[in-house]
Amino acid sequence: MSSAAYLQLAERSREIHLLRSVAAVLSWDFETYIPSKAVPYRADQLSYLEAKAHKLFTEACVGDWLKSAEQFGFDPESEESANVREWRRAYDRATRIPVDLVEEFERTRTIAREAWVQARAESKFSLFEPHLRKIVELTRQKVELWGYKESPYDALIDDYEPGITARQIKPVLEQLRVALVNLLGQIQNKPVPETFLDGHYPIDGQQALSNKIAAAFGYDFAAGRIDTTMHPFATTLGPFDQRITTRYNIRRFEVSLYGVMHETGHALYEQGLRTDRVGLPSGDAVSLGIHESQSRLWENHVGRTPQFWHLWHATACKHLPDIARYSPAELACGVQRIAPSFIRVEADEVTYDLHILLRFEMELALIEGRLKVSDLPEAWNTRFHELFGLIVPDDARGALQDIHWSLGSLGYFPTYTLGNLNAAQLMFAAEKQIAGLPDQLAQGNYAPLLSWLRENVHQHGRKYLPAELMYRATGEPTQARYRIDYLRNKYLS
Amino acid sequence: MSSAAYLQLAERSREIHLLRSVAAVLSWDFETYIPSKAVPYRADQLSYLEAKAHKLFTEACVGDWLKSAEQFGFDPESEESANVREWRRAYDRATRIPVDLVEEFERTRTIAREAWVQARAESKFSLFEPHLRKIVELTRQKVELWGYKESPYDALIDDYEPGITARQIKPVLEQLRVALVNLLGQIQNKPVPETFLDGHYPIDGQQALSNKIAAAFGYDFAAGRIDTTMHPFATTLGPFDQRITTRYNIRRFEVSLYGVMHETGHALYEQGLRTDRVGLPSGDAVSLGIHESQSRLWENHVGRTPQFWHLWHATACKHLPDIARYSPAELACGVQRIAPSFIRVEADEVTYDLHILLRFEMELALIEGRLKVSDLPEAWNTRFHELFGLIVPDDARGALQDIHWSLGSLGYFPTYTLGNLNAAQLMFAAEKQIAGLPDQLAQGNYAPLLSWLRENVHQHGRKYLPAELMYRATGEPTQARYRIDYLRNKYLS
Repeated sequence: MSSAAYLQLAERSREIHLLRSVAAVLSWDFETYIPSKAVPYRADQLSYLEAKAHKLFTEACVGDWLKSAEQFGFDPESEESANVREWRRAYDRATRIPVDLVEEFERTRTIAREAWVQARAESKFSLFEPHLRKIVELTRQKVELWGYKESPYDALIDDYEPGITARQIKPVLEQLRVALVNLLGQIQNKPVPETFLDGHYPIDGQQALSNKIAAAFGYDFAAGRIDTTMHPFATTLGPFDQRITTRYNIRRFEVSLYGVMHETGHALYEQGLRTDRVGLPSGDAVSLGIHESQSRLWENHVGRTPQFWHLWHATACKHLPDIARYSPAELACGVQRIAPSFIRVEADEVTYDLHILLRFEMELALIEGRLKVSDLPEAWNTRFHELFGLIVPDDARGALQDIHWSLGSLGYFPTYTLGNLNAAQLMFAAEKQIAGLPDQLAQGNYAPLLSWLRENVHQHGRKYLPAELMYRATGEPTQARYRIDYLRNKYLS
Repeated sequence: MSSAAYLQLAERSREIHLLRSVAAVLSWDFETYIPSKAVPYRADQLSYLEAKAHKLFTEACVGDWLKSAEQFGFDPESEESANVREWRRAYDRATRIPVDLVEEFERTRTIAREAWVQARAESKFSLFEPHLRKIVELTRQKVELWGYKESPYDALIDDYEPGITARQIKPVLEQLRVALVNLLGQIQNKPVPETFLDGHYPIDGQQALSNKIAAAFGYDFAAGRIDTTMHPFATTLGPFDQRITTRYNIRRFEVSLYGVMHETGHALYEQGLRTDRVGLPSGDAVSLGIHESQSRLWENHVGRTPQFWHLWHATACKHLPDIARYSPAELACGVQRIAPSFIRVEADEVTYDLHILLRFEMELALIEGRLKVSDLPEAWNTRFHELFGLIVPDDARGALQDIHWSLGSLGYFPTYTLGNLNAAQLMFAAEKQIAGLPDQLAQGNYAPLLSWLRENVHQHGRKYLPAELMYRATGEPTQARYRIDYLRNKYLS
């Protein structure tokens, strides 16, 4: 069932994976514990590792092995066939861009990120504009080299969400927009003050509580740990090493608590990948939209509910006495607060996807050449007013708020919304397929849900493209209506 | 002044250094924060990196560059010449052992370490005996391949202390033995109880105090940090990244405090290496005996004194209120407690080197074939009684107590004593050369001492062999009498 070329590809793939996992350890340390003066040499170490990995993957022999493996005639349904497909995608993406362009793009990104930090601090788009213009220009060059069928945007999102296109995303987001704007109009009558849950929540109590909840969800602390960083993330340092970070706000326990639930969802996905496939595509996470579905599912569908607070109220009060001032229902109400605001990362469940829609429209227009970078702030502010009914006060709270474009990541934003849609759709399917799931969750019996996700999502790695994975798990590719129904049920009942 | 071959060697040397610094990050994480299940893959990552580094260094082209650089005719006093000398030493050591023997030694070490853990736990030398026999046998094979002039032991210690021989060590240790046994007889009349300083010392207070002292010594926290591990160590992860670890005992502040001073000494050496020589021998620490001199100097000559406690008493009381029960003189008395005991790592300043003498005699006899492994415990116990006047109660407190031999590290122990001797000799020279040094130290003005060490020791890296480095700094190669005088002055006055 195997060809020699396939085995060589697999060995090379494992070696590259090992190098990248080494880099992941260095990056984790970079984000958590590195002393400030050590940063420049760490950058050298990381560049070296990435260059080695890139070189190992783009050597001519890899192209020869790929051709040979493609001609071998693996069963199209086989894991081998899927791995060859994924190697081919990655190989073509990596080899079609000349080294000069790769280097120019890296230099541009580095400078752009610095400029963005400055521009955002001063809320002056003009400081960032020339850098973003350069990024868009170079990105358009790359896109032409990669190739695409319809929109140049498709070649970008393919990096994050293999197989999906702008044409497929548009109607889904439009359907969502109509429903969300409508829903928002109905909810705004019952506001909860922003400071509703504010209190004094000592950090060790927050840690004890969120550790218990992460463990209850199924996070394996013998294969992970939780550290503190300014920007929370989940990362994988090896097959049994999925780490989480969070940040604590002593007045607002929910910042860290829901952050940990979110990152736990990501880590549970990684902990559910097949450890006998380490270093192969079939042992790797398939896409950002699927990854985000796992974080959103645990954070919002499991954690941001009245049932959750009925169950965890007593434990939470034990670790954080100030929580005792609220009933479970009040806690649920507080963490489900809906209020349009300017900043995406602070957005609630209902308005969140409107932020994404806006970004998707902007970057699509930029990459298709329909919008000039210099016109971006005005276009952003106009559209923001249409969607949210609010006037953007400055660029820091407008087109400058996100880091993504400064990093050269265009085509990334829609995966957040795809994650939300997939979460609702998977949860709907899980409720149909697991007898008594709502009761199990209400009792804190999270194992059946996790097993279902392991079986239907995690264990497949990249064997199926995201759309097929969703189809196999839920009977349909990604739809908007499950999320719309979920939000309506949750916020209008 | 340069040859092309030299530049290629330098580039290769920097690349290997970078790979090993990457491994150092992974090892640091392994010791501090790794989740338990992540250990096996971490071992794979580390083996991969070490194999890559080894391969890069032992390629035939490196041998060619070396020959060419050696023939280029660098000034023998130049840095280039010293670097070529050090690359040659390392290259010959790395290439003279066939791969089969390297692998057999690695396998033997791994199994021996496991066996040693078990043997020590059960205090049964017989469990460790066959493994140690194998290690000695393979080490003798390696030694023959490396070559040596007089004793096979010389080829071993050369790895840790370049240039020194068993013939040089013997008379120094003998002189030390006579003086120490004599000194011990005079001190034992005034014992301090082992529990003299016991109290309640909260960990955050211990941390605050030892951080202040490390910073006062000159440790740059922007290029380092202190974490907690079972076995304390100092390690370098990059040119501006020298980290320390310690362990806290809530009843005994001195365990961590003097541990931190010790590791700070190591880290100060590494922080004093030339950052414009990163990856070259001239930018690397020269030997274990010099390294240990730096840790012992700060720990014992600076920290374990009445002057130190006069200066730090008030600060210590602030962070650790239980310390207020003691006067500065009593604190100094407590941390200078002398009492012969069975365990090397718990030994005081006077008996410590007797422990080393014993190990040196044993491993020298083993490697020269004058002692059979099966006879080791009896030889150990007999000699221990002669030196300490105590009867070893079991092997766990005798020949099984140290990990070194199970790791295949024979020839390592004398570097501890060399460190002690070098510390006393350097301190004597510093006092002669720095006007008012005792007053400066008494006032906490540590900068002049650190500057002197930077100039006379740290900045030279491996440019000089340890004996020449000591000669240049102090006017003599390593001698026993400075340490003997130091101990007599300190403990008989």
